[in-house]
Amino acid sequence: MDDMNKKYGRGFTLWFTGLSGAGKTTISEIVERELREKFGKIEVLDGDIVRTNLSKGLTFSREDRDTNVLRIGFVADLLTRNGVGVIVSAISPFKEARDQVRRQIGEDFIEVFVDAPLEVCAERDVKGLYKKAFSGEIPQFTGVSDPYELPAAPDIHIHTDEEEPHESARRVIGKLEELGYLARVEEYNRA
Amino acid sequence: MDDMNKKYGRGFTLWFTGLSGAGKTTISEIVERELREKFGKIEVLDGDIVRTNLSKGLTFSREDRDTNVLRIGFVADLLTRNGVGVIVSAISPFKEARDQVRRQIGEDFIEVFVDAPLEVCAERDVKGLYKKAFSGEIPQFTGVSDPYELPAAPDIHIHTDEEEPHESARRVIGKLEELGYLARVEEYNRA
Repeated sequence: MDDMNKKYGRGFTLWFTGLSGAGKTTISEIVERELREKFGKIEVLDGDIVRTNLSKGLTFSREDRDTNVLRIGFVADLLTRNGVGVIVSAISPFKEARDQVRRQIGEDFIEVFVDAPLEVCAERDVKGLYKKAFSGEIPQFTGVSDPYELPAAPDIHIHTDEEEPHESARRVIGKLEELGYLARVEEYNRA
Repeated sequence: MDDMNKKYGRGFTLWFTGLSGAGKTTISEIVERELREKFGKIEVLDGDIVRTNLSKGLTFSREDRDTNVLRIGFVADLLTRNGVGVIVSAISPFKEARDQVRRQIGEDFIEVFVDAPLEVCAERDVKGLYKKAFSGEIPQFTGVSDPYELPAAPDIHIHTDEEEPHESARRVIGKLEELGYLARVEEYNRA
């Protein structure tokens, strides 16, 4: 049992990848709230923060998308190796860029594949983007007119069309406990 | 005396600004070595690291220079507020961008003006850049064909034409001690 807690106090990067509308933000926000109570240092690098502060001017070409992902990865790595728990929410459609970030951060990188069928994401269409993507108003839209490369071996695979956000978030927290990043808390074992 | 150590364990950003060749890197590298012994968590954001990882594609226009400085500031702030000691070495020629970073990071931002007359920097010409700047081969070169706005009230002002790098580095460390970021070490008081 002691081995399971050997990472306690170490930083980590929870990397939520998936289509627009799959539920990345919804789940990561619940996870964030839980972690703020259970883990001292948490930083969230979400799409908007990153676009404003790191990636202004980048397009949606493959090269620029990869640049965006690698920049987030660079910052996530700096924080992770200094003991911060980092939550990244980014479509990050290309496998090679995600894997490059995984190699950079190492075993503290935890890939969370937030998965839902395109039809489900398009039906939710929270931001009204799919309508514009299907009409061609937005070009290079991941899942519609641009590829999403599936994670081959995500650390956590969440099907948001089959599971409530709170259940998904609990599985993410459970994974962090299992890996030893969090102190085990009784109420979570009881659940 | 206790008050002086109230910041012990808090992060900070040491921001070295000044002309190319003024001695930013030389001094900051000495400071880095000292701090790695005195302060657990240190990250260096120098020009090359940042250009590769955060600012590929930016030009030397005023807008892009400011964007570069603000990106470094964004990352420095994330690290500083999580208890990391950050060393930034960047020409950062424009006052408003530097001040914006100061506002973002707050009192943990420590501006170090590494100052030397242009003639001295040009004579050193470590990287051979001034020759190219004066011949016009490199356009928009700070101090030659592009402005450097002097810091109005730097926290530390170093004249590298009048002082050896080790003395300058010692003054920087002394300032961190004075501000309470470092535990006071006897050998430093004796010096």
